[in-house]
Amino acid sequence: MSLPVLTIGREFGSGGRIIARKVAEALQIPFYDRALISMAAEETGLSEDYVRETEQKPTASFLYNLYMSTQNLPISDQVFLAQSDVIRQVAAKGPCVIVGRGADYVLRDQAGCRNLFIHAPLEQRIERARTVYQVAATNYKAFVLREDKRRAVYYSRYTGQVWGKVQNYDLTINSGLGLDTATELICSLAQKEDAHE
Amino acid sequence: MSLPVLTIGREFGSGGRIIARKVAEALQIPFYDRALISMAAEETGLSEDYVRETEQKPTASFLYNLYMSTQNLPISDQVFLAQSDVIRQVAAKGPCVIVGRGADYVLRDQAGCRNLFIHAPLEQRIERARTVYQVAATNYKAFVLREDKRRAVYYSRYTGQVWGKVQNYDLTINSGLGLDTATELICSLAQKEDAHE
Repeated sequence: MSLPVLTIGREFGSGGRIIARKVAEALQIPFYDRALISMAAEETGLSEDYVRETEQKPTASFLYNLYMSTQNLPISDQVFLAQSDVIRQVAAKGPCVIVGRGADYVLRDQAGCRNLFIHAPLEQRIERARTVYQVAATNYKAFVLREDKRRAVYYSRYTGQVWGKVQNYDLTINSGLGLDTATELICSLAQKEDAHE
Repeated sequence: MSLPVLTIGREFGSGGRIIARKVAEALQIPFYDRALISMAAEETGLSEDYVRETEQKPTASFLYNLYMSTQNLPISDQVFLAQSDVIRQVAAKGPCVIVGRGADYVLRDQAGCRNLFIHAPLEQRIERARTVYQVAATNYKAFVLREDKRRAVYYSRYTGQVWGKVQNYDLTINSGLGLDTATELICSLAQKEDAHE
């Protein structure tokens, strides 16, 4: 049985990345997230630090982008394109789990992908940011909501789609049901044959 | 092991009702949808035909509603309230599957419910409306979209929430993966113990 490529989007603090890693371990397939940045950096010749820094600023000003577009593509777009190349390369190699980076959109023309989204009640996400991720913040709620916003903007900017819209995903799960439950449901889906109904 | 109450919302033509019935059969628990209308009718003393007819017209005019509110609740609101009572009654009896009717919202304060939403690509839904449901329509696409709209309006009117918004559901599934796959995933979720992570 051949496993699919799994893309996983997630609300900040939902434990989506943890679930993604558990799924990859359970299915014994490669897991990609931050590593993508390094690979993209190698691809473009940009230093890892520079790419990481740019990652944090996806909303460069319109004028800056306009200026850059007369010179070259904005650096953030270069990073996205380089990362998209990496995503297509790793997906072409075989089954894997890819977290974030608009991978569902990047791989939209590749048959057999399964696109997932993980969310959770806000209180649980705030609590996870505080205790598990140990985020340094004074207002955890504001921090969590700001991170969601950043992801929504990134997704929208590069895909033209709405982040977390149900129709964009094969499966969405409330991780409040438990990280293990979410992991098992995803593994269960991954191990099913394609539908012929 | 105790099973939960499962509520299932669905896009028109997604096969959500078929999946819901399969789930109820597999778990050997009661299934409620159209039957709810009969039970609600008995509850309110309204004839079944009258209730069914009203069901088709959830958007009575504002002036009509305003006029009725000076007399009594609008008939559509009476139907919703009666149906909500029925939903709470059947949910209180034990595990069951309830399709549509904003049941997820009606049961929002009841612990241990699992709220699900089924969607599918538009082309598949049009095809199912034509061949499986054998809907009488000249423009199937328009028909399907109109039915979606009707459900969205109904849901929004009575719950104040957005129909099909990912955060309102524990699990959403693209039934394009297969009706059996969707059924199995839901049964699998229903049979898991509550999370303590």
